[in-house]
Amino acid sequence: MPKISEKAGIMPASPIRKLVPYAEEAKRKGRKVYHLNIGQPDIHTPEAALDALKNMDLKVIEYSHSAGNESYRRKLAESYRKIGVEIDHNEIIVTTGGSEAVLFAFMSCLNPGEEVITFEPFYANYNGFAISAGVTIVPVRSYIENDFALPPISEIEKKITPKTKAIMICNPSNPTGALYSREELMQLRDIVKKHDLFLLSDEVYREFCYGEEHFSAMELEGIRDNVILLDSVSKRYSMCGVRIGALITHNREVLAAALKFAQARLCPPGLGQIAAEAALDTPKEYFGEVYNEYIARRDFMVNALNNMPGVYSPLPRGAFYSVVKLPIDDSDRFAQWLLEEFSYKNQTVMLAPATGFYFTPGGGKNEVRVAYVLKIEDLRNAMETLAEALKVYPGRVD
Amino acid sequence: MPKISEKAGIMPASPIRKLVPYAEEAKRKGRKVYHLNIGQPDIHTPEAALDALKNMDLKVIEYSHSAGNESYRRKLAESYRKIGVEIDHNEIIVTTGGSEAVLFAFMSCLNPGEEVITFEPFYANYNGFAISAGVTIVPVRSYIENDFALPPISEIEKKITPKTKAIMICNPSNPTGALYSREELMQLRDIVKKHDLFLLSDEVYREFCYGEEHFSAMELEGIRDNVILLDSVSKRYSMCGVRIGALITHNREVLAAALKFAQARLCPPGLGQIAAEAALDTPKEYFGEVYNEYIARRDFMVNALNNMPGVYSPLPRGAFYSVVKLPIDDSDRFAQWLLEEFSYKNQTVMLAPATGFYFTPGGGKNEVRVAYVLKIEDLRNAMETLAEALKVYPGRVD
Repeated sequence: MPKISEKAGIMPASPIRKLVPYAEEAKRKGRKVYHLNIGQPDIHTPEAALDALKNMDLKVIEYSHSAGNESYRRKLAESYRKIGVEIDHNEIIVTTGGSEAVLFAFMSCLNPGEEVITFEPFYANYNGFAISAGVTIVPVRSYIENDFALPPISEIEKKITPKTKAIMICNPSNPTGALYSREELMQLRDIVKKHDLFLLSDEVYREFCYGEEHFSAMELEGIRDNVILLDSVSKRYSMCGVRIGALITHNREVLAAALKFAQARLCPPGLGQIAAEAALDTPKEYFGEVYNEYIARRDFMVNALNNMPGVYSPLPRGAFYSVVKLPIDDSDRFAQWLLEEFSYKNQTVMLAPATGFYFTPGGGKNEVRVAYVLKIEDLRNAMETLAEALKVYPGRVD
Repeated sequence: MPKISEKAGIMPASPIRKLVPYAEEAKRKGRKVYHLNIGQPDIHTPEAALDALKNMDLKVIEYSHSAGNESYRRKLAESYRKIGVEIDHNEIIVTTGGSEAVLFAFMSCLNPGEEVITFEPFYANYNGFAISAGVTIVPVRSYIENDFALPPISEIEKKITPKTKAIMICNPSNPTGALYSREELMQLRDIVKKHDLFLLSDEVYREFCYGEEHFSAMELEGIRDNVILLDSVSKRYSMCGVRIGALITHNREVLAAALKFAQARLCPPGLGQIAAEAALDTPKEYFGEVYNEYIARRDFMVNALNNMPGVYSPLPRGAFYSVVKLPIDDSDRFAQWLLEEFSYKNQTVMLAPATGFYFTPGGGKNEVRVAYVLKIEDLRNAMETLAEALKVYPGRVD
């Protein structure tokens, strides 16, 4: 039997999805499992998007342009211009989810063995795409003690080597909920400019900023050809399943390169593009409601967590996650124990061990990521259950 | 400005799509362009698929399982069993088009620098995926003189090195329309077994075999863990835009590896999966009609081509393409000239220069790929136009 590749060997299994069999087993036992582990919101997809699908009058679902339908790109460019990001529709490549945008950016910008700096804890799948593209992730640690703020510039510069080609940020951040201020982004701009690096900015949670304006990396002056914006409609319109994202940049060489990778895979999903284009007409009230709902959920959850002895959650300023410190020995063990051995009122919770978001071995052992994607009534039960679990968990550490 | 990657530099632009600006210009001049250049059938997508989308009652378009919806995989496995391919739903990973299945197969099976043998002319995008994965394509030439049959085993074995990890076939073949017989596949099986290679079998045109039964690589005995089937619904149901394919294998290590790549990109398109699952209920008559239509188109086109002086087209036994020899100096120049300078009755044709399907420099210079995806009335006009063009093309070579 021929051997599989080395890449396949080092490719990490999803840190979240590996707990799925335990959750399934708990459900088989009749337990209610509250999913705080995954960023699948329960918010409805906008009617405009669903209606567009129901009212399609296509006879043939054809290939679209490799960069995405022009009508969609034009409307998308317009929507960016409304938030102060000046781009042309030819500077957009529609991708299969934000995932493909990350992969295209890595493959277009970095050679195998070259390095991309990112801030730990970070979205676990960045590592999967880095392995796919053969590039190396170099993490710079951020700390829960200062709410996962951008690490000091001096710490970032220490990690720059001749192989460094890019800095990657997720703003607001999955998994931490941190939101980088204009000042922090200006500091990044200075490093990017000084060392002539790419700045890959994943802004898929842009609409989810609580009380502060989002400042896009595309608004940074003087590094026009360095910035690549990575975007997705998944969270914005609560339609993760359509798999529509975008790679956006003023850099013509990167655009031409990414388009070649895009041409090889022919086109992004056609039906998803129909939904995404229609979703651009979603009325403002939708976002207002969603925004208020998330603020209420966040406040409820963070308050509940910080009332549990030994627990600390920062107040997330964006996205819909928090990385939370728990009085436990090992977050992987704890997450599994919750599903396998614990129940309270015949219910339990599923958490994402934060170890999956750290690159440095040992990082996140007493932290978990929680997503506040459930309605408050469910969050209340989930928090009550978690509080009870922490009281009796055999690996509790104070 | 930071430099783009070397991969991006060597990545080929789509050999078909690079002519698009000339076609657009011809249309702006008011010319009718017959598209023989691309495998976008005009056949209607089955009603079952379109109805499923119109009748969706989803409120949230959620992520699906990374391997695809279980309900779809179960029905798909059943449909394979009906054609003699015994697989379980857990041996299927639903991918974003056949494209992603090829990429996952390369990344799961081959290390950067390792080699995959395939038969020239071959589907151009294999090379794009090979570059993405860092693997090397080693072509073995097949010839129009013997209708692009499988090259002799001795020619294949000459190309096997310690770096050879896989053989890849497209059966029936895009671009040539060749269909490998059971005997040819048995020969491949022997090589694969002898050298312990993977056999990657792209069978996306399986339903398009004219007068002969399709024999799947999955039916080969004794190489159960070597075969990886790459599939797609694009052509089968004339819905290229949904981007749904599959990677199928009995090899558990490859499945586990591919699943990790699948998890990193979260899931295949959700709406496309709904369409693809519903399409499995397409009545047999649909395929009967499609089949008869393609046979009629093929026969009409091949006859018309072979009646033109100096032109030779094999009779394709599968798919809906033919690689055709023309009395011309340079197929890229000819294809561009057709769009830029020629018109007959205010119409012209767009062809795919076969150079894009050859890896060896110079291959395909007097060949083009034509797709018979237009109705006969249009094909008649297209053939008449091509015949006139060949009479006056300044680079005609006899």
